[in-house]
Amino acid sequence: MRMYDIIRHKRDGLALSDEEIAFFVQGFTDGSIPDYQASALLMAIFLQGMNPRETATLTDCMAKSGDRVDLSSIPGIKVDKHSTGGVGDKTSLIIGPIVAACGVPVAKMSGRGLGHTGGTVDKLESIPGLRTAVNQEEFFRMVREAGIAIIGQSGNIAPADKKIYALRDVTGTVEHLSLIASSIMSKKLAAGSDAILLDVKTGSGAFMKTLEDSIALAKAMVDIGTRNGKKTMALITDMDTPLGYAIGNSLEVIEAVETLQGKGPGDLTTLCLELAAHMLLLAEKGTLEECRQMARKAVDSGEAFCRLVKMVHAQGGDPAVLEDTGRFPKAPVIAEWKAPRSGYLRHIRTETCGIASVVLGAGRSRKEDSIDHRAGILLRKKPGDLVQEGETLAELHTAREEQLPEAMQLLEQAMEIGTTPPAPVPMVYARVTADGVEML
Amino acid sequence: MRMYDIIRHKRDGLALSDEEIAFFVQGFTDGSIPDYQASALLMAIFLQGMNPRETATLTDCMAKSGDRVDLSSIPGIKVDKHSTGGVGDKTSLIIGPIVAACGVPVAKMSGRGLGHTGGTVDKLESIPGLRTAVNQEEFFRMVREAGIAIIGQSGNIAPADKKIYALRDVTGTVEHLSLIASSIMSKKLAAGSDAILLDVKTGSGAFMKTLEDSIALAKAMVDIGTRNGKKTMALITDMDTPLGYAIGNSLEVIEAVETLQGKGPGDLTTLCLELAAHMLLLAEKGTLEECRQMARKAVDSGEAFCRLVKMVHAQGGDPAVLEDTGRFPKAPVIAEWKAPRSGYLRHIRTETCGIASVVLGAGRSRKEDSIDHRAGILLRKKPGDLVQEGETLAELHTAREEQLPEAMQLLEQAMEIGTTPPAPVPMVYARVTADGVEML
Repeated sequence: MRMYDIIRHKRDGLALSDEEIAFFVQGFTDGSIPDYQASALLMAIFLQGMNPRETATLTDCMAKSGDRVDLSSIPGIKVDKHSTGGVGDKTSLIIGPIVAACGVPVAKMSGRGLGHTGGTVDKLESIPGLRTAVNQEEFFRMVREAGIAIIGQSGNIAPADKKIYALRDVTGTVEHLSLIASSIMSKKLAAGSDAILLDVKTGSGAFMKTLEDSIALAKAMVDIGTRNGKKTMALITDMDTPLGYAIGNSLEVIEAVETLQGKGPGDLTTLCLELAAHMLLLAEKGTLEECRQMARKAVDSGEAFCRLVKMVHAQGGDPAVLEDTGRFPKAPVIAEWKAPRSGYLRHIRTETCGIASVVLGAGRSRKEDSIDHRAGILLRKKPGDLVQEGETLAELHTAREEQLPEAMQLLEQAMEIGTTPPAPVPMVYARVTADGVEML
Repeated sequence: MRMYDIIRHKRDGLALSDEEIAFFVQGFTDGSIPDYQASALLMAIFLQGMNPRETATLTDCMAKSGDRVDLSSIPGIKVDKHSTGGVGDKTSLIIGPIVAACGVPVAKMSGRGLGHTGGTVDKLESIPGLRTAVNQEEFFRMVREAGIAIIGQSGNIAPADKKIYALRDVTGTVEHLSLIASSIMSKKLAAGSDAILLDVKTGSGAFMKTLEDSIALAKAMVDIGTRNGKKTMALITDMDTPLGYAIGNSLEVIEAVETLQGKGPGDLTTLCLELAAHMLLLAEKGTLEECRQMARKAVDSGEAFCRLVKMVHAQGGDPAVLEDTGRFPKAPVIAEWKAPRSGYLRHIRTETCGIASVVLGAGRSRKEDSIDHRAGILLRKKPGDLVQEGETLAELHTAREEQLPEAMQLLEQAMEIGTTPPAPVPMVYARVTADGVEML
């Protein structure tokens, strides 16, 4: 088999065989296929497409290119969850404990934030002492101890995906559905769960801005999971406005704690209960309605919060900050952004809002950047709220006082105030399963 | 400007600006743009195409990437000729002297053979002592002395084309009209002539097998030349059968000499007179009919042959072999391939025949291979001839006796003998100018 022929086949619009895809992934990973041939193939894939079988095979080959987590020693159906990312998305910190409280083991690897979207690992690390870089043995010990652990990506997970993604990033071949879906799913397949729930965001703060694109991505990922023998389901959820009120690492942990204590924002609570119910459904805990009741009960009873405390303890963190969130270190400067006029807050341009929080120190522009766990934005108002001129719409938390003008200007651009209220939007738009798309 | 954006523009089907094309060619040539970005762009070009303006600009940028021959010190209109290559194509050795004998200076750079097609430089080098690797000063001295010189590509001509072609060769992006046309024409533009005649071959021995493809290539190349300010014209000529009877370097020089002496094969003589007439037309020597008479007269008067002798002398070769072609060194083995049955010779699969001559030592499979100037095939019959079982159809000249069985087998495959004569084919199918295509 020659890479040259594989390139020509895809160039001419043919479907690649499983053997050809495996040859490419293995050869590119081990260095026997040079970058310039891989980039030619990726451009041919970008322009000629891949069918669902090819996409599933590519994903499987990338998943098998490195270490694969074996969760079989943990009893029960292990359900993973993946969010395509957004602003203020602290759902993993809430859903994980809820699901664990319902008796489903959670052994989850999460990522760090990049650009306007945050990452669960960064948020967890705002808890003093908490460790996310652990080996597999420690990881399993934590899960056994607390029924739940959320750690950073450990070991050599899907190195083929890493290498292919780095090449796509510099050759204009990122924005292709099959390639995006296979990149995400390769890491999920390697993470070893039995079932996968995908939270595919849609709207101004999401990677996919339109409902149509979000559904297409969800379908592609559900198809990949299903073809690789994992029960996979996706919810299409709103990211046209930041989730909850808190953006920034410790600010979000505090909001997650409040939500687990039944005092969280309505949108965040609704979404977390729905996602948790679907994870329980995938874990075969009952009908969807029964799972919803189970999730609600785990919060109301305090069991879920308790589980978060246990998890933090098992991972070496100080649970005292959870019992009294006032103990989290605070940013030295807290400025207020005030409404320039009265009216309805009609829309928050969510990506812009996310960038403002990065400017304040809460996120990274480049992978190498360090972050300030205290920094971020605390919204006081959400779309639909009536606001008065001069009223505070957001608090800006930062140690970089010199960045405040830029962040304020971004917020000014992000906040749309008008004379009429916005149309209400659903929190969950659709459910995508192997059987098809169900609009909700 | 960023290569990343240029790739995305072409990927999305946009036309690239002249500045973007220049940025790519310069950056790739000087090494600031890596192979993997260049190959992604080339695949995007392959699949999304380039319009005539983009193609002309790419060609111009590649032509300007290295040395450019300045022929302005040679008085008169300089006309270059390029053949897309074939089997038994010794036309340059005949046309050059004819045109020079008519007072048009010929300062021509030619190539070497590769695969089943021969190259003029290899043919010339079968003349003892003749030099084709000369510097520009010597080149001009030769042209002044003999009115004609044909040398190898000297200096650093179109290095961008060399580098881009090498990458296309390993990334499945060779067979694209705009890229093929720009590669050929970049070298012609850098060679410094005022006008260009293209001999685009069509048929079983040509790069383009169908008339339609050959016309499309001719149109693309004429358009490039015209847009870059060179009067450019193409003839579409037959390469469905080897040209003349001789295939192989010294064998072809001998046939060229015979043709210049008025004793050459009909097809070769007809083609050479027609090509020469068109070069004279481009040199503004008269109407096409006047140019045809001029060319014919140059042969009949012996002036053209005389010019070849002068050229060989000026380039350091021994003209004695031209006056007595029996003095050319002969291959140690001359075998005969005999007709397996009686009938009409209907067709010669020309590429197969060319490969047989390579097997005998007359050509190269890879650039590094050396060649035997004595080796080759001398046909005794051409399509349309009646042949008797056991009659010799071809002589095989070689020093590699062990290769004879393979060459014989290839000839067996190449020669089609049937009960009816083949339909006659024209020598020149069409003329392509900036004004359009004229079928002849």
